[in-house]
Amino acid sequence: MKKTPITLPLFLFCCLLQSAIHAQPLQLMGYSEAASQAQIKLEQQFDSHITTANQDQWMKRLAARPHHPGSAYGLENAKFMEALFRSWGYETRLEEFFVLFPTPKVRKLELVSPTKYTAVLQEPPFKEDATSGQTKEQLPTYNCFSADGDVTAELVFVNYGVPADYEELEKRGIDVKGKIVIAKYGGSWRGIKPKVAAEKGAIGCLIYSDPEGDGYFHGDVYPKGAFKNDQGVQRGSVLDMPIYPGDPLTPGIGATKDAKRLERADATTLMTIPVLPISYGDAKPLLAALSGPVAPESWRGALPITYHIGPGPARVHLKLEFDWKLTPIYNVIAMMKGSEYPDEWVIRGNHHDAWVNGASDPISGMVAVMEEARAVSELAKTGWRPKRTIVYCGWDAEEPGLLGSTEWAEHHAAELTQKAVAYINTDGNGRGFLYASGSHTFEKFFDQITRAVTDPQTGISIFDRIKARDLVDGKAEPKSFKLGAMGSGSDYTPFIQHLGIAAFNLGFGGEDDGGEYHTIYDSYDHFTRFKDPGFHYGVTLVKVAGRTTLRLANAEYLPLEFQNSAQTIGGYVEDLMKLADNMREQTQKQNRLIREGHYKYAADPTLTFIVPAPKDEVPYFNFAPLQNAMARLKDQADAYEKALSNSKMNKEKAAVLNQLLKNMERALTRSHGLPGRPWYKHHIYAPGQYTGYGVKTLPAVREAIEQRQWKEVQPQIDILAEVLTTFAKEIEKAVLFAR
Amino acid sequence: MKKTPITLPLFLFCCLLQSAIHAQPLQLMGYSEAASQAQIKLEQQFDSHITTANQDQWMKRLAARPHHPGSAYGLENAKFMEALFRSWGYETRLEEFFVLFPTPKVRKLELVSPTKYTAVLQEPPFKEDATSGQTKEQLPTYNCFSADGDVTAELVFVNYGVPADYEELEKRGIDVKGKIVIAKYGGSWRGIKPKVAAEKGAIGCLIYSDPEGDGYFHGDVYPKGAFKNDQGVQRGSVLDMPIYPGDPLTPGIGATKDAKRLERADATTLMTIPVLPISYGDAKPLLAALSGPVAPESWRGALPITYHIGPGPARVHLKLEFDWKLTPIYNVIAMMKGSEYPDEWVIRGNHHDAWVNGASDPISGMVAVMEEARAVSELAKTGWRPKRTIVYCGWDAEEPGLLGSTEWAEHHAAELTQKAVAYINTDGNGRGFLYASGSHTFEKFFDQITRAVTDPQTGISIFDRIKARDLVDGKAEPKSFKLGAMGSGSDYTPFIQHLGIAAFNLGFGGEDDGGEYHTIYDSYDHFTRFKDPGFHYGVTLVKVAGRTTLRLANAEYLPLEFQNSAQTIGGYVEDLMKLADNMREQTQKQNRLIREGHYKYAADPTLTFIVPAPKDEVPYFNFAPLQNAMARLKDQADAYEKALSNSKMNKEKAAVLNQLLKNMERALTRSHGLPGRPWYKHHIYAPGQYTGYGVKTLPAVREAIEQRQWKEVQPQIDILAEVLTTFAKEIEKAVLFAR
Repeated sequence: MKKTPITLPLFLFCCLLQSAIHAQPLQLMGYSEAASQAQIKLEQQFDSHITTANQDQWMKRLAARPHHPGSAYGLENAKFMEALFRSWGYETRLEEFFVLFPTPKVRKLELVSPTKYTAVLQEPPFKEDATSGQTKEQLPTYNCFSADGDVTAELVFVNYGVPADYEELEKRGIDVKGKIVIAKYGGSWRGIKPKVAAEKGAIGCLIYSDPEGDGYFHGDVYPKGAFKNDQGVQRGSVLDMPIYPGDPLTPGIGATKDAKRLERADATTLMTIPVLPISYGDAKPLLAALSGPVAPESWRGALPITYHIGPGPARVHLKLEFDWKLTPIYNVIAMMKGSEYPDEWVIRGNHHDAWVNGASDPISGMVAVMEEARAVSELAKTGWRPKRTIVYCGWDAEEPGLLGSTEWAEHHAAELTQKAVAYINTDGNGRGFLYASGSHTFEKFFDQITRAVTDPQTGISIFDRIKARDLVDGKAEPKSFKLGAMGSGSDYTPFIQHLGIAAFNLGFGGEDDGGEYHTIYDSYDHFTRFKDPGFHYGVTLVKVAGRTTLRLANAEYLPLEFQNSAQTIGGYVEDLMKLADNMREQTQKQNRLIREGHYKYAADPTLTFIVPAPKDEVPYFNFAPLQNAMARLKDQADAYEKALSNSKMNKEKAAVLNQLLKNMERALTRSHGLPGRPWYKHHIYAPGQYTGYGVKTLPAVREAIEQRQWKEVQPQIDILAEVLTTFAKEIEKAVLFAR
Repeated sequence: MKKTPITLPLFLFCCLLQSAIHAQPLQLMGYSEAASQAQIKLEQQFDSHITTANQDQWMKRLAARPHHPGSAYGLENAKFMEALFRSWGYETRLEEFFVLFPTPKVRKLELVSPTKYTAVLQEPPFKEDATSGQTKEQLPTYNCFSADGDVTAELVFVNYGVPADYEELEKRGIDVKGKIVIAKYGGSWRGIKPKVAAEKGAIGCLIYSDPEGDGYFHGDVYPKGAFKNDQGVQRGSVLDMPIYPGDPLTPGIGATKDAKRLERADATTLMTIPVLPISYGDAKPLLAALSGPVAPESWRGALPITYHIGPGPARVHLKLEFDWKLTPIYNVIAMMKGSEYPDEWVIRGNHHDAWVNGASDPISGMVAVMEEARAVSELAKTGWRPKRTIVYCGWDAEEPGLLGSTEWAEHHAAELTQKAVAYINTDGNGRGFLYASGSHTFEKFFDQITRAVTDPQTGISIFDRIKARDLVDGKAEPKSFKLGAMGSGSDYTPFIQHLGIAAFNLGFGGEDDGGEYHTIYDSYDHFTRFKDPGFHYGVTLVKVAGRTTLRLANAEYLPLEFQNSAQTIGGYVEDLMKLADNMREQTQKQNRLIREGHYKYAADPTLTFIVPAPKDEVPYFNFAPLQNAMARLKDQADAYEKALSNSKMNKEKAAVLNQLLKNMERALTRSHGLPGRPWYKHHIYAPGQYTGYGVKTLPAVREAIEQRQWKEVQPQIDILAEVLTTFAKEIEKAVLFAR
């Protein structure tokens, strides 16, 4: 398919759909020509089984009541799904774990001076939203894994509450020690905000949804429109997941009933200060009561106030108490054994727990998994079986911190490391454009899928729709689909970043308005009005994820490719070098400005301005080991491509090659993990320590540079070079086998 | 001074200040070494006379009551200033003109459906602002030169109301024909908004101050803070000044009592639809009542609403009637005859009329002119006289459209063209950084002044403070002070753009908070709290503008320089070529996107999206005539510099050279003016037809390209090339005289 004019694949695919007689040879990666034809036919059959009605019906059922971890309805849902998978012929079981899952006992927030205000902390039900009135079963608005606390202090507005924001505060002579901070949602994953606040000495943290990021600024608010109303609150976890996700008491092992657990005091991922999410309705009186400097322009939101930073005169009282109980959680696991490679597993999952009713997050993704599994079971009724084993998973307790998937992955680590070929994740779905991140070894493979599936609104391929958007946005014309690098925020993390299993994360969006995320309004009513009315993108997701599952399950040899990956990783290496150079230049520049007094002279003398201290200069690093490793990697990537195109592949050869390719992603991991966070084994992708969900590529080196830990940089460059060299060596083996 | 390290001139100047004995030779442009020393000593004496107290006292007096054109207090002010100038020894007179100056008789704005709201249209007085309660004398909030009208129609929100905004509307299938539009202040000069609205078929226009641009978004509102409160309204003219400024009935001639006047219907600068400025308090219910598509993100402001575009369901009724009277206006003109070159005039002016009390605009600038004139008169008491004649001017009726200065310039065109060396304008002043635009032939001359005057807050030169700010803002280190190109918006326009008299526009700002512009709150109380408490920048402006006046008045030969100008104009020519190339590329790109359907495919199919029609391709133009002219200009600029540095200048030589240099700016004008607007004679600088105040350099060619009038481009290139060639030839003459 290389260098084919863009419109051809769609044309070909249409031809194939319309008339098998005119079918041109379209070779799928990992397949011979003949096998490609058969697979494409299989996919047509698969498509023919997909309905919107099932997804609609299942969503209605699964989102009918709140179903957070440990809830009665959550268990009912798990059993309901288990029964369905079983009815479709899967070997199905519920896997139970016991995890720490704190829920609120006391939540109190008040402005105590200069004026009084008691925060509402409650989302009102609406008649337009049938499930919004189930107040008894709803988890209250809170941040899971906040500390208990009872604090009263002056308030400081800290923008997003990321480290750069505290530099701005320092310039204004403002210290948050002993204060309570209020940060906007956005700019980082929420857990970073209280973590940084605590590091800076704050004793409490509020996180609010500013209407500019999530509210009327974007459109009419719920229930008139889709967006967040003035009492909507984004719940969510503040577990320090960049250290390790999963049950805080059982890092690295499955949280079975009898697992050896840490004392709570020894768990390193629990937040150390009380933190509470609030609505913009509750935030407004607090922010309006602040005085002190006016916030920098980029900090200001869409509330009709002047955004001051404080500290004070606003003083707030925040009291939080939690029930720190162990809770049973239930993963749904359903297997269809492979006919040729039963010990090679293609794993496909989505979580099923929600903060409240969770129609969009996660049920819209979960029902797509179910419909995929059902359609696959329809294929199986004809006697067909996948070559590899397919495992469908419905994870529990993703919301508090990827608990279900992480405990399962940790518990089955040995078997998974042995057998897993790939993990394909989804987590909510909506109308719009395909967003996909994943292992770059599968990028070319996945590109074929994006050209084979039709966008339901425009009738062109989903790739062509993305291309149209990019072109209209003034971006360069994409020649192929680009997988994003994987950070965190959903259940792929334990697979790729802990176990080194190649992974995907897939979903549609961008035309699915909403402010319902983690509120009681993430409901069937909201979803079917605003997110994916008619479930057309639900069907499309089944087609995309189903093809990914099926093509991987049926491939004669695993469709990995290394030229794209080498180029992408090579780009990351160049980024690193540029990062060091830019930081060096910036540091020199800034230190000069400090030294020569320009900061002082440029500042408004009537305002407090503390000239920042000069920063230590950025040393030069030896990047040659990385460059050498990259050269070797690129050579081997080319060699593999050549070997494969000249190869006379046969079943025996493929079987041996598959064994090697299956483990290829593992070559990018090291058992010692990343500095300071050994749970994260992968040396190419990790969530950032100060971004949370946001990815840091080549994380050990990149974060050492970003955090100015100069002594760490060279050792980590050497480790990374060794990792990349190992990867190149593994490809070299594959070259020999593929020949 | 070329290539001297940046800090040296300040050092030198300090030395000179502190101890004339240690004075190093610092040669002023246009002066011999000896004359430089004398001039610097003179400037020290000048500085010693400048007080803050006078400016404070005069501002209190001049801003004590509303003094718009035609008001009793305006005439009192003119007489007060006249008496002062006369008392200082100037030949002083009031020059009277009679201009069209409509003021409101009826102003009515109401939301008639779906809900009712009657606009307040009235700024409340505050006890914290002593003059805000003078309601009987205050001009109501209005846009001067709006049409009369009584219209009721659906409302459409059009962002800033500039042409690009209407392209966005068209994409959404929204037409303003027969509608009333509401536009935010900002993005262009206000007069462009109703002009474009009328061109698009709208029947009425509202202009409001969004709190994001001018209100609580920036800081606490008046009277607590400096910024615009919810009833503050920006008055202002909507005369079509890019066609011609000044009295609409007497274009090109002075509006004397007996001048031949156009019929009002024949004046081409009057707005054709009713237009009214309103507060954000009045705008909010109107905007909140709109439905239809949500406005693009960049259109949204800081009101706590979802910004919809409409049209409707909001319907508004707008009724405006004006008293279209002729009004007498009074320019204050004060002259001190030159001792050597009485027929070479250095003109220094500021307007004195205001929309209401106008402490900042214009009195803060006017009192600086007065204090400068007084300090010069102190010098004159010692028997000193300037070599050239100095003319101090206080213009009336600037606010409605530069009426006072334009009528004066038109009336005295012959004499001014004969005698004027330069016009130095100010128009309001505040705390912060120097902003200056002007003729680039004076850029190097002015650079010396920016290094000679000390910033009152930091003690470094005003140039060094600008440098500090630029460096902190991440800009390149400025090697010399850059004069901005002149657009419009104050009284320099008739001088430079109509008569071809080299000009400056000077003022400090950037640390002078405010939302008082053209409101009743532009008061002494506001100014002394927020704009320039203590009048320290008032004093600094006197030093800067005074040096500009005095150095020009006393120069042995006029300090023009052509290398900088040639480089700057050369940059404009390059910009033009890039503009054509970029437009060509953009057009091709966009037409491709249209042709291939990408626009259609990228759009959300649930929203209205009209794919724009392809644009005509941009032809290639012959820029060679411009390039050849520029080469010649650069050669002559170099030659002049060389001739001057080798010259043995003497008085006779200088006198001849001065005659030539005095007229140099006139070489850049043509009597036929710019296409479609013959009043604008200058071919390098003009206000943009669709930016208003914003400058368009090389306007005839640039606007022909921007407005896609391809047939106009080549003829205008040829005209411009001829202008630049003439300019080069004039410099060539100067080279001969200077040798």
